Amino acid sequence: MASLVVPDHFSADADAEGLFKACKGWGTNEKAIISILGHRTAAQRRDIRQSYEKLHQEDLVKRLESELSGDFEKAVYRWILDPADRDAVLVNVALKKPVQEYHVIIEISCMHSAEELLQVRRAYQLRYKCSMEEDVASLTTGDIRKLLVPLVSSYRYEGDEVNARLAKTEADILHDAIKDKALNHEEVIRILTTRSKLQLIATFNRFRDDKGTSITKGMLDEKPDEFASAVRTVIRCINDHKKYYEKVLRNAIKKLGTDEDAIIRVIVTRAEKDMNEIKEVYYKRNSITLDHAVAKETSGDYKDFLLTLLGNQG
Amino acid sequence: MASLVVPDHFSADADAEGLFKACKGWGTNEKAIISILGHRTAAQRRDIRQSYEKLHQEDLVKRLESELSGDFEKAVYRWILDPADRDAVLVNVALKKPVQEYHVIIEISCMHSAEELLQVRRAYQLRYKCSMEEDVASLTTGDIRKLLVPLVSSYRYEGDEVNARLAKTEADILHDAIKDKALNHEEVIRILTTRSKLQLIATFNRFRDDKGTSITKGMLDEKPDEFASAVRTVIRCINDHKKYYEKVLRNAIKKLGTDEDAIIRVIVTRAEKDMNEIKEVYYKRNSITLDHAVAKETSGDYKDFLLTLLGNQG
Repeated sequence: MASLVVPDHFSADADAEGLFKACKGWGTNEKAIISILGHRTAAQRRDIRQSYEKLHQEDLVKRLESELSGDFEKAVYRWILDPADRDAVLVNVALKKPVQEYHVIIEISCMHSAEELLQVRRAYQLRYKCSMEEDVASLTTGDIRKLLVPLVSSYRYEGDEVNARLAKTEADILHDAIKDKALNHEEVIRILTTRSKLQLIATFNRFRDDKGTSITKGMLDEKPDEFASAVRTVIRCINDHKKYYEKVLRNAIKKLGTDEDAIIRVIVTRAEKDMNEIKEVYYKRNSITLDHAVAKETSGDYKDFLLTLLGNQG
Repeated sequence: MASLVVPDHFSADADAEGLFKACKGWGTNEKAIISILGHRTAAQRRDIRQSYEKLHQEDLVKRLESELSGDFEKAVYRWILDPADRDAVLVNVALKKPVQEYHVIIEISCMHSAEELLQVRRAYQLRYKCSMEEDVASLTTGDIRKLLVPLVSSYRYEGDEVNARLAKTEADILHDAIKDKALNHEEVIRILTTRSKLQLIATFNRFRDDKGTSITKGMLDEKPDEFASAVRTVIRCINDHKKYYEKVLRNAIKKLGTDEDAIIRVIVTRAEKDMNEIKEVYYKRNSITLDHAVAKETSGDYKDFLLTLLGNQG
């Protein structure tokens, strides 16, 4: 369930006017911006952008960028974009960072349905005038590239056919690869990047049944290198993405200095989808509500905005 | 331009009835089947299938399969399916053959627009309950797999941005790979499977300008192995698919025994698209019309059907 709280009544023109007023003149009314945008669905945000453009011949996204700053600006910018467009931006930013953030690319490739991932690929082309797989392929190398290119290009089968015999064979292949420290074996990459998610979950279950340990625990034996971490991220995103997100949030919050990028990314991405379940998982694991933990680590308008997206009516 | 000739007036119910009559009782009226199906677009054929199903609670495709035989049956079967569904079948058949026909998979992956290829992937899932890339990945190995999986997964950029500097760099990479007989280098695969077609054509042109020979000629030095042939097919399909199809037809016709699969595939696939241009290229190269060449190598209803698709009103 979404954490986002959306009022029954909606008028794109009224919201566009509200945002125009909030930005007009000296100073910006951040509270007004939060009270509008923090309670609108993706479709409504798109309507508001269009109304704003029509009424004021100005791009609302650019206007807000010039009015806001810091983490608050980043969160609003990530939020106001269409989800597919936002993910395209996230992939591009992850690729262009001095230390590339493979986990962001993996998250976006594995979390989405086939159709959603396709939307991201379309948005990427529209924005960057090249294909997503083209950038991933030309900006990464070696084993990471062998994993990421098929991941971002995947259009997985989503029917409910699961082949139990195959799950056993492929659980064995994965097990051997872990044992031999040969995760970069092309069979491992083939399995993780092309099989349907249901089939993979059957394979992971079979791994646990046969080997007496979960596949992700099985991979923890030694300090993982960059590639092993990436493989582990793929498995965790497919196996239980809510637990995966809980851990991203936990690590981001407990990190010295807080990883704002990660917090923004997860909240903005999941607020309209299943944030309430992620909050439950978080509370179970940390004995503190996510809202409370976020409130402790953030401040000001940025904090108010995140808490609004998390469903706080405050 | 299409070679297919379609009358102005169309009634799916009348055609369904016509086909029902042609199949009823002893013997089949092949001429009637040809005169209907040989003059209908993909959308019309779909309407006819639906009408037939509605009127007779029977699958027209299955009925025709039981009425017809040999190459004629195969041609009608390939033709009556939705184009994306037919291509899904072609890929699957190519994968399952004792000697896999990589060129068919390459053709389908490279010839289509991004959106058309996606339709084929969707049709493949619907029909085979798994993804196309999943089957390609699990039924091929080695370098061929490294080439085919990204090809069938591609969703290439189709805008008109072309980077001339990149064309030069990548023409050099391709040239070095050919010179070093290292076509299986992952950079070659990356370039051919992810760059936009316009970008690739710029790269191939640059290759010719800089090296004084076309890239496909440059690859002809020695007897090519299976992988080099596959790479060459990719390049030829992207560079000039009409010339490519002309050669497929030429080889199929001059082959001892005639390669009916290839003839059917090309005619059925292109009749509604650009068969007239392919016929022109064929005539230029062979000094005999394609219709004439096909008529010489085929006979009976099969011949009549192919010639009808080629636009013969006879």
